[in-house]
Amino acid sequence: MKSREIHLTAYPKGEPGPGNFELAEVDIPAPKDGEVLVRNAWLSVDPYMRGRMSGIRTYVDPFQIGQAMEGGAVGEVIESNNPKFAKGDWVLSMNGWREAYVSDGKGLQKIDTSLLPPQAYLHIAGLTGMTAYVGIKRIIDLKEGETLWMSAGAGAVGSAGIQFAKAMGAKVVATAGGKEKCDFCLEIGADAVVDYKDTGNLAKAIREAAGGGVDGYFENVGGSHWTAALEVLKPKGRIAACGMIQRYNDASAQPLPDNLTNIVAKSLMIRGFIVTDHMDMIGDFMTDLAQWMMAGKIQTRETVRDGIASMPDAFLGLFRGENFGKMLVKL
Amino acid sequence: MKSREIHLTAYPKGEPGPGNFELAEVDIPAPKDGEVLVRNAWLSVDPYMRGRMSGIRTYVDPFQIGQAMEGGAVGEVIESNNPKFAKGDWVLSMNGWREAYVSDGKGLQKIDTSLLPPQAYLHIAGLTGMTAYVGIKRIIDLKEGETLWMSAGAGAVGSAGIQFAKAMGAKVVATAGGKEKCDFCLEIGADAVVDYKDTGNLAKAIREAAGGGVDGYFENVGGSHWTAALEVLKPKGRIAACGMIQRYNDASAQPLPDNLTNIVAKSLMIRGFIVTDHMDMIGDFMTDLAQWMMAGKIQTRETVRDGIASMPDAFLGLFRGENFGKMLVKL
Repeated sequence: MKSREIHLTAYPKGEPGPGNFELAEVDIPAPKDGEVLVRNAWLSVDPYMRGRMSGIRTYVDPFQIGQAMEGGAVGEVIESNNPKFAKGDWVLSMNGWREAYVSDGKGLQKIDTSLLPPQAYLHIAGLTGMTAYVGIKRIIDLKEGETLWMSAGAGAVGSAGIQFAKAMGAKVVATAGGKEKCDFCLEIGADAVVDYKDTGNLAKAIREAAGGGVDGYFENVGGSHWTAALEVLKPKGRIAACGMIQRYNDASAQPLPDNLTNIVAKSLMIRGFIVTDHMDMIGDFMTDLAQWMMAGKIQTRETVRDGIASMPDAFLGLFRGENFGKMLVKL
Repeated sequence: MKSREIHLTAYPKGEPGPGNFELAEVDIPAPKDGEVLVRNAWLSVDPYMRGRMSGIRTYVDPFQIGQAMEGGAVGEVIESNNPKFAKGDWVLSMNGWREAYVSDGKGLQKIDTSLLPPQAYLHIAGLTGMTAYVGIKRIIDLKEGETLWMSAGAGAVGSAGIQFAKAMGAKVVATAGGKEKCDFCLEIGADAVVDYKDTGNLAKAIREAAGGGVDGYFENVGGSHWTAALEVLKPKGRIAACGMIQRYNDASAQPLPDNLTNIVAKSLMIRGFIVTDHMDMIGDFMTDLAQWMMAGKIQTRETVRDGIASMPDAFLGLFRGENFGKMLVKL
C-alpha cells in the first residue's frame, strides 16, 4: 500500500518555514512474519520537535534530512503477523508524521479506547499529561495550599497542569497570550490569569494576581517569563523547566537581565527535566488521573487540523500560538 | 571597659567604600548575673556580608545604620557570671566587627582549641567549610569519579571545596584569577586550573581542562562563570549556587546571553542554598573533616589583617580579590 509522510528537507536556521518540509509518498511493504501494519489516526504536534530539527544532539538524536520525521501517533492495527497484536487493536507509537507503517511491534503500546478516545493518549493521558504531572508533583513538589504559576496555560501541557494543580489543592495563576486564551485558563480552573501580551511589567502583574509571590513556576516559555519568575518566586521557590518556546527559533544570543542572584538570596531550585526520565511515576499518574476524571475535574481541549499535508503548518502554528490545548492532526 | 567596633554609616549603592564604615568606641558594661564578657581574638570577613548592607531583607535582616555590624568571631571569656561558661573558655559567636562584648550566653558556642587553632572555627571547621561541604555533598551530590568545577578556587569556600571534593574521590577543575592563585589551587590538589582573567573563552578552557564536560559546578561568582557553566555541564549536571560575588556590587541589570535552554536540553539542576538551612549535616561534616585532617588531606591558608580598624578594608579587599583562602582580622 501507499502511505504519505513528511520528510525534513533542511535544518532550519531560526524560525522554520514550509520549505523545511516535504510531503512524500512511499510504498509500505506487506507485513512479514512477526510484523504488524498500522494505519495512524491521530498525530501529535509538539514544541519539543523543534529541538530535533537543529541537527544537534540534545537529549534525543536529531531528525535526519530526507527521512520521515518522528513523533507521537495513535493508530489501528489493520494487519497483524505478530501474536501480541490483533487486527483492530489501537496502538500508541513514535511513528508519527506518516499515514501508515510496518513495525515488528517494538515500541508499540496497546491502548484502551473503551474509556478514552484514542487521541487522549497523545495529550491528557499521554506524555503531555505526564509532563505536567511530573513537573508539578516531582520537580516542583507542589504542596496543598501553595501557589503555582503555570506559563503557556492555554497550551497542551499548561492546560493539563492548571487542572492537575487545582486537583492537588493548590492555587494557580496562569499566563497566556490574548483574551481568548486567558478566558480559557479561567474556564478550566485557574484562580487568576495574566495576559502577558497586555502587561508592561509581568512580575508585578503576577504578584498582584497571586496576592504575593509564588511557590512554584512551571517554565514553558523562557525569556521574559524566566526573568519575571526569579523576581516573583518566594524563598525556597522551585522552577520546573520543561520547555522554553520563546527561544527555540531564535539562534541569536539575546541577552537577559542578570537577576540570578535571586537564586542565592532566595534559595531557589531550578530543574530541567524530560518526562521519559520519570516513567516510574506512570502508575501514580494513571491512578490520579482516573480519579480526577471520574470526579469531573478534567476538561480537555484540542486544536485539530485535517490530513497529513497539514502537519507542517500545524507544527509551525505552535510558534504562532495557534493552539488551544493540544495541537493534533487527524488523518 | 572600652571596646572599639565598626558601624555602618550608610547603605552603599554599588561598590562600598571606606566612607560606609566608621570606627566607634563604646563602653562595655560589667557583666551582670547570668552574663559573660568576651574579648574577640579573630573576626571573620565574608562576601555574604555585602547582602546585609543593602538595606533589603534577603535571607537575613539587613545591618542597621549607626549600629555595629555582625559576623562570625571567636574570642575568650574574660569574665563570667554564667554557670555555663568559665573564664578562659573560647567561644564562637556572630558578634564580630567589635573587640569585646557582653552576652547572656545565647548564641555562643564553646569551641575546643586543643585540636585546632581558634580561628579554624571561622573557616575550615566553621560555616565556611560547612558551606563547601553542603554544596558538594547535598546540593550537587557529587559522586566518586565525577568532575567538579570549583569557582573562586583560591577563596575560603573554594579552597575548602577543592580539598573536600578530592577527599571524596572526585576530579576537580578550579578557576581563579591570576597565576599566584591558580598555583595555589594546584598546590592544594586541584587536577587542573583555569585563570579566568587569562582566557577569552572560559567554557572552552574549562572543557579542555576537564577533558570534556563537568558533572557539578560550585557557583561563587556569577556572570560570565554562570554562562560558561550552562555550556560545559554534562547532561544531568548540577549547580550549587552559594554566592555570586561578581554581581554583589553591581546595581545595574547587566544582561547575560540567554543560554537557558541548556537547562531543558540537558536536564540541569540548579539550587541556591544557605548553609544554615542544612545544619543537620554538621555531624557528618565534623566526622569527615576530622578523618580527612588526620589523613593529612587538608591544608588551610589564611589572609590575615591586624586590628579592628583594618576590618572595613579587609572586607573591601574581598571584592578586589585580595584573599588567599580565608580573610580574617586578628585583634
